[in-house]
Amino acid sequence: MAEADSNLSALKQIRAVALDVDGVLTDGGFWWGPNGEEWKRFCFADIMGISLARRAGLTFALISGEASSLVDRYAAKMQIQHVAKGCRDKAAALRDFAVSAGLQLKHIAFIGDDVNDLPAMKMAGFSAAPANAAADVLAYVDFVAQKEGGNGAVREVIEAILRAQGLSAAELYLQPPNPDKSS
Amino acid sequence: MAEADSNLSALKQIRAVALDVDGVLTDGGFWWGPNGEEWKRFCFADIMGISLARRAGLTFALISGEASSLVDRYAAKMQIQHVAKGCRDKAAALRDFAVSAGLQLKHIAFIGDDVNDLPAMKMAGFSAAPANAAADVLAYVDFVAQKEGGNGAVREVIEAILRAQGLSAAELYLQPPNPDKSS
Amino acid sequence: MAEADSNLSALKQIRAVALDVDGVLTDGGFWWGPNGEEWKRFCFADIMGISLARRAGLTFALISGEASSLVDRYAAKMQIQHVAKGCRDKAAALRDFAVSAGLQLKHIAFIGDDVNDLPAMKMAGFSAAPANAAADVLAYVDFVAQKEGGNGAVREVIEAILRAQGLSAAELYLQPPNPDKSS
Amino acid sequence: MAEADSNLSALKQIRAVALDVDGVLTDGGFWWGPNGEEWKRFCFADIMGISLARRAGLTFALISGEASSLVDRYAAKMQIQHVAKGCRDKAAALRDFAVSAGLQLKHIAFIGDDVNDLPAMKMAGFSAAPANAAADVLAYVDFVAQKEGGNGAVREVIEAILRAQGLSAAELYLQPPNPDKSS
Repeated sequence: MAEADSNLSALKQIRAVALDVDGVLTDGGFWWGPNGEEWKRFCFADIMGISLARRAGLTFALISGEASSLVDRYAAKMQIQHVAKGCRDKAAALRDFAVSAGLQLKHIAFIGDDVNDLPAMKMAGFSAAPANAAADVLAYVDFVAQKEGGNGAVREVIEAILRAQGLSAAELYLQPPNPDKSS
Repeated sequence: MAEADSNLSALKQIRAVALDVDGVLTDGGFWWGPNGEEWKRFCFADIMGISLARRAGLTFALISGEASSLVDRYAAKMQIQHVAKGCRDKAAALRDFAVSAGLQLKHIAFIGDDVNDLPAMKMAGFSAAPANAAADVLAYVDFVAQKEGGNGAVREVIEAILRAQGLSAAELYLQPPNPDKSS
Repeated sequence: MAEADSNLSALKQIRAVALDVDGVLTDGGFWWGPNGEEWKRFCFADIMGISLARRAGLTFALISGEASSLVDRYAAKMQIQHVAKGCRDKAAALRDFAVSAGLQLKHIAFIGDDVNDLPAMKMAGFSAAPANAAADVLAYVDFVAQKEGGNGAVREVIEAILRAQGLSAAELYLQPPNPDKSS
Repeated sequence: MAEADSNLSALKQIRAVALDVDGVLTDGGFWWGPNGEEWKRFCFADIMGISLARRAGLTFALISGEASSLVDRYAAKMQIQHVAKGCRDKAAALRDFAVSAGLQLKHIAFIGDDVNDLPAMKMAGFSAAPANAAADVLAYVDFVAQKEGGNGAVREVIEAILRAQGLSAAELYLQPPNPDKSS
């Protein structure tokens, strides 16, 4: 009860979401082909979630430990401006994002899945992880999604944030807010 | 009981099925490669289901929010004539399909998985979703499949329609109906 | 009890296994790329199972409704000589296999996952399906694997056959039978 | 209790981990394309686990029955020096690894998933398998992971080893040990 209340209070203040990529927006896998190729799998449930959250005025950042061009491609598709890739210090990257977005850390949620996300998670106003995150992360975060990475975990966290703020995905799609409310 | 009865009554009237693509015919994922490629995963259980339903005289449409060439390829493989892709207004696309197929909306089922499918679902005679559809969709639809998107959800809905009409997949395969009964 | 006994009796007589491909050796999915490519996913658990069963003298056939070159590639990798692809009449293909292998139908098991496999299944001495096969197939077959297609279902059926014949995968690997016992 | 104690005692002595590849570091699947290509899927949870274990001074080897170039690519990415591929005798390969690493077999854990791993597992100081390993392997090993191959099974075994040695993934990431402790 106390935990749920504290989560609700934190979620009401969220104005931005920083996302780890592998294991969060992807299923944590990578496919390798015979000529050095690397492929990853994302999902449309998250794409729709990010689109709707932007209508509600939320800002997004991608903070990835990998230096993959797919991070840039995803950012371009979703019009996400703040991107840190090949990132060794996610806490520093999160602070940079806060400054560039003009937000306090308590206004930012961080979704991650492994131990290199913990320093950023400890700074963020709210932390969440997919159901299949690393054990140390599951033990730490404010919110564990029922869905796995790359299969709707990000969408689920976004919907929890929206719900805390009195919004729903369906309403945002069917009745977009006034332009002056969305950033 | 009342709900099941009402579903049965609606299913008996279905003559056509309009399908969202991503998350319905696919597992909702998309694979990205290093050179801008995009791949998606479909399944043979749905392929067989659509083939058998066509033997029973059902007509199909694809109504997708994405503008992917894979929608056309799938339509070509399954001889589906009504295709709307890159579609911003699925309700309008569903109405177009009804007109072109000479059917009333109550004769059309819509299978979708996310909030952009809701307006079409609200117009259709019957609405269904894969087990892993968005929460707002699961809360709305007449029928939630036990199977997930791209893993037999469409097949399962098709079999529910056929069963309501006194048909089974096995019978349709083993004893195809007379040509004058199928369209 | 009676059913298990009857299965055991049938399994003891099996000398060959005819395999559907999609949904049996694969997970039933197909990946489509932007230039008309099609990919499928097989698994090593089945590869090892087929290899070990061949050591025990079992013969294999591939009987696929699809006309994919991957069927030939799989047959070549596993040294499977009897291949029917693009097959509209699997019962006829099964009969051909029996003749060419010099076996009675009661000596052949058929593993399939959809209604087009039913005619062959009804002729075969033993029929089995992956856990995620079509409902009509699950209702018919002698044996439903706990594993899904492309994820060890074929291996599981092979191990059931071997076990009925007093053999195990581990023993076949660690103590291969005499050459004169394997074909 | 006795089994857990004996595991703990064995895990405390582990200084190196020998890994089968297919079904252990991958999900056991392989994707085939139209032009003879073969793809496999690995995961970042294992990548992070191996990296952290190396910080703790553990050494790794890859011992694969397949002769795939992806084994070399994985070894290069993870700076794993001992690689045996296309390996018919994994017990011999494990012995070679022990010699070249200057370790006794009781100091080496082997993670495998199928019957060709059993001879090496029987020699190793500790044996473990993914949740979806072959039945004969599940029946034999000291430790069955709750996670499946290519989905964190290796990570889970590594964390069990680290925990037995008083270490955790989070601590190793946040407070790397002194250089003179790691190799």
